[in-house]
Amino acid sequence: MSERLGFIGLGKMGRPMARNLLRAGFALTVHNRSRAPVEALAREGAAPASSSKEVAEKSDVIITMLPDTPDVEAVILGPGGVIEGARPGSVVMDMSTILPSAGRAIAARLGGKRVPMLDAPVSGGPQGAEAATLSIMVGGPRDAFERCLPVLQALGKTITHVGDHGAGHMAKLCNQVACVINLQGVCETLVLAAKAGLDVESVRQAVSAGAGASWMLTVQGEKMIRRDFAPGFFVRLQQKDLRLIMAAADELGLPLPATSLVQQMFKILEADGKSESGTQVLVQAMEKIAGCEIAAPGVERGSA
Amino acid sequence: MSERLGFIGLGKMGRPMARNLLRAGFALTVHNRSRAPVEALAREGAAPASSSKEVAEKSDVIITMLPDTPDVEAVILGPGGVIEGARPGSVVMDMSTILPSAGRAIAARLGGKRVPMLDAPVSGGPQGAEAATLSIMVGGPRDAFERCLPVLQALGKTITHVGDHGAGHMAKLCNQVACVINLQGVCETLVLAAKAGLDVESVRQAVSAGAGASWMLTVQGEKMIRRDFAPGFFVRLQQKDLRLIMAAADELGLPLPATSLVQQMFKILEADGKSESGTQVLVQAMEKIAGCEIAAPGVERGSA
Repeated sequence: MSERLGFIGLGKMGRPMARNLLRAGFALTVHNRSRAPVEALAREGAAPASSSKEVAEKSDVIITMLPDTPDVEAVILGPGGVIEGARPGSVVMDMSTILPSAGRAIAARLGGKRVPMLDAPVSGGPQGAEAATLSIMVGGPRDAFERCLPVLQALGKTITHVGDHGAGHMAKLCNQVACVINLQGVCETLVLAAKAGLDVESVRQAVSAGAGASWMLTVQGEKMIRRDFAPGFFVRLQQKDLRLIMAAADELGLPLPATSLVQQMFKILEADGKSESGTQVLVQAMEKIAGCEIAAPGVERGSA
Repeated sequence: MSERLGFIGLGKMGRPMARNLLRAGFALTVHNRSRAPVEALAREGAAPASSSKEVAEKSDVIITMLPDTPDVEAVILGPGGVIEGARPGSVVMDMSTILPSAGRAIAARLGGKRVPMLDAPVSGGPQGAEAATLSIMVGGPRDAFERCLPVLQALGKTITHVGDHGAGHMAKLCNQVACVINLQGVCETLVLAAKAGLDVESVRQAVSAGAGASWMLTVQGEKMIRRDFAPGFFVRLQQKDLRLIMAAADELGLPLPATSLVQQMFKILEADGKSESGTQVLVQAMEKIAGCEIAAPGVERGSA
């Protein structure tokens, strides 16, 4: 018998993910703080719920996809939360990016009610969510992982069990380290090219074909040149992730010099009121420092 | 009629590139400071020459692939150099990574003898050179570029004409910016994973499948975990490139904060006597800072 699924948090990532679960044939109960996405998914066949507790009561696997650590704590452990409705043997799967130590604490609380937990954050952005090509990093007990594998396979392409509770959240923070440093690399590469008077798009393509290639150069570099700064992934949430990374690294006593540098670069953008832009707007911090803009005149403009 | 080619500089990159030109059917005259690689290529069908001047006399297209700016200046402009043997209408193509302003100065000197010059540095490492899959960034006059295209196509897969004299050298420096920052990203990613007790190879694979993917994570990250620090690309030459980048950025009045940070990280390795290791040894600088090693016990070891 197929698992009944619950999904809490229908934002830029959660909405397309929930839709993919419906398309894969799962019975799905959904909840979200604002009602519009609940109603939209109800029209596509999901059952709307009015609380996280209600979602948990009606589901065998309860998925949370929320912005930050306090949101996940409130939705799972707070009044009217998942913990009040979940039955022993249900699985809670948090796909948000939160502090690993907080994820472990939530898992311990759920474990006290015989509700196993997985942490299963994702990488690949809204486009990966829509295409169900996400990379999903999973922490928690292996039997719960194996039970949830068909659910994960409806959401992503690369599914990796990386360890016990919190290991998925931590792997996601590792992923974000690679992301932000690569993004800074794209910015310095393209600004050097522009400042030297080169054709920036030609350089982007040439570098993409060699040892400097990255997902960020392919996807975000192209948007930078087109001046398309629409999110994607908000600067605000990227800074939240960077705070989590630095907090987790502090707990471990680990300096991360380049990660820290990129965190400072993003602060230039926050000070300029760009928290709601996509992270590719990082190029504007480098442009501000450099006193030049990377896009050649006549380049077609995207949304700002 | 096919061009007669000359090749000067048969190192880690030059040797497999020259071999690919022979395989493509070009007549090839070769020269190198040490004789062993000349003799090896002579056994495969190349004509050995005893000076750069002699190579130039016998060739329509003269390729240089040398470690640094002074080497290229000496080989092309010095006594017994290319400029003494090149005939009007021959093309000099420098595939080394050197300071763009120096490349432009050499082009001007050759131009005075009606010898057009291309700067055509490459990315992709010895494995790209061997497989003829290099990304080649070309600066210089378009007619010389088009004339040399069949030669370039025997050496690489992605061939991009990025602008006039020096533009290829500059694009290569842009490429190196992307490379070194991505490499630092790999190091911080893997050290965070190790310090948190995760399975580092699992994390590497999960990150490689998402928005944190890069050539460096795929190729160099894998070597770091195997403790294979054989070059590839020497720390010594990477630092040479970083000096060129910072010099070129200085000429442009451009700060490159993350590039500069990685330059400092490599200095940790130089101080530790690791100039002749491959650049993936950068992980050891992070490990030194972190007080841990990324490889799990029992991991199979490569050469050190």
